[in-house]
Amino acid sequence: MARKSIGESNGAGTGSGSAAVLDMEARLTEDHHQSLVLWLRMLSCTVRVENEIRSRLRTHFGITLPRFDLMAQLERHPEGLRMGELSQRMMVTGGNVTGITDQLEEEGLVVREPSPEDRRAFVVKLTPAGRKAFGKMAAVHEQWIIELFSALPASSKDMLIDLLSQLKQGLNDRLPNERK
Amino acid sequence: MARKSIGESNGAGTGSGSAAVLDMEARLTEDHHQSLVLWLRMLSCTVRVENEIRSRLRTHFGITLPRFDLMAQLERHPEGLRMGELSQRMMVTGGNVTGITDQLEEEGLVVREPSPEDRRAFVVKLTPAGRKAFGKMAAVHEQWIIELFSALPASSKDMLIDLLSQLKQGLNDRLPNERK
Repeated sequence: MARKSIGESNGAGTGSGSAAVLDMEARLTEDHHQSLVLWLRMLSCTVRVENEIRSRLRTHFGITLPRFDLMAQLERHPEGLRMGELSQRMMVTGGNVTGITDQLEEEGLVVREPSPEDRRAFVVKLTPAGRKAFGKMAAVHEQWIIELFSALPASSKDMLIDLLSQLKQGLNDRLPNERK
Repeated sequence: MARKSIGESNGAGTGSGSAAVLDMEARLTEDHHQSLVLWLRMLSCTVRVENEIRSRLRTHFGITLPRFDLMAQLERHPEGLRMGELSQRMMVTGGNVTGITDQLEEEGLVVREPSPEDRRAFVVKLTPAGRKAFGKMAAVHEQWIIELFSALPASSKDMLIDLLSQLKQGLNDRLPNERK
């Protein structure tokens, strides 16, 4: 509610810009806005890391983040994933799952196979070559993540993992229809 | 390095799918992969919250997340932002900043004004009507965030904010050329 009143008071004039921003920040650090502060902090850390990884994947391997993400999902599911499942599991938005799959298939890195559960459907799998190519990138990717998170000591990382696990469980309980 | 060897061993056969996944998860929870576990946990929590907010904004207000994000950036900068600054500050990818700005301008929610620092450039600002419209949505948005984070007690939220602030500082130190 405070954000609304801040917005409205600022709307009346443009002279008090930076004072209004300081005022908003002061209010945002009050307990009342704790969840919003937490969300914005989490979002900004995630965006920073994601953008850095996106840029390094392009520079070092000439690939996009959605392509890396798609291969990572397939590596986690050696039994193969249907296109719908694959779309749902993607961690980054903006990737064209069908387009990426077509491209990877042309390069011999994935195959489409009939689904063992439903012969009319098909699943996508990494080929041995795809698995090998992904493995090489994943090892470098993990080193980047270790580097980017190196400001935190191991005990802080454990604490963060634990707190985020509680949050994830809470989200699973609250949003039961979404993928876990 | 372990992810690479997992990938390569899986590539040899397809019969041990779920065992291979369990094996990977077991390895991923070893200390060695602590940073990667942390990153994947953080990314998945962020994606869950972001997707839920995206869907609610569409249902309740008929707007996209990039449009909400763009208005939020302008609300935080009553002095106005240049188009380049605005693009850089956007927290979500996939939004067409020029297209959204054009649309908001047509609806009378933002204005383009000559920049006070450089008369050849212009800045984008919320109009009083834009500020009011955003304020109403922001109040509801904050209630959603409070609800989605309600699994965590206040003390855990404080701890998370503190740990994420350390991470953010570490990222700022490591990636000095990016926006803070």
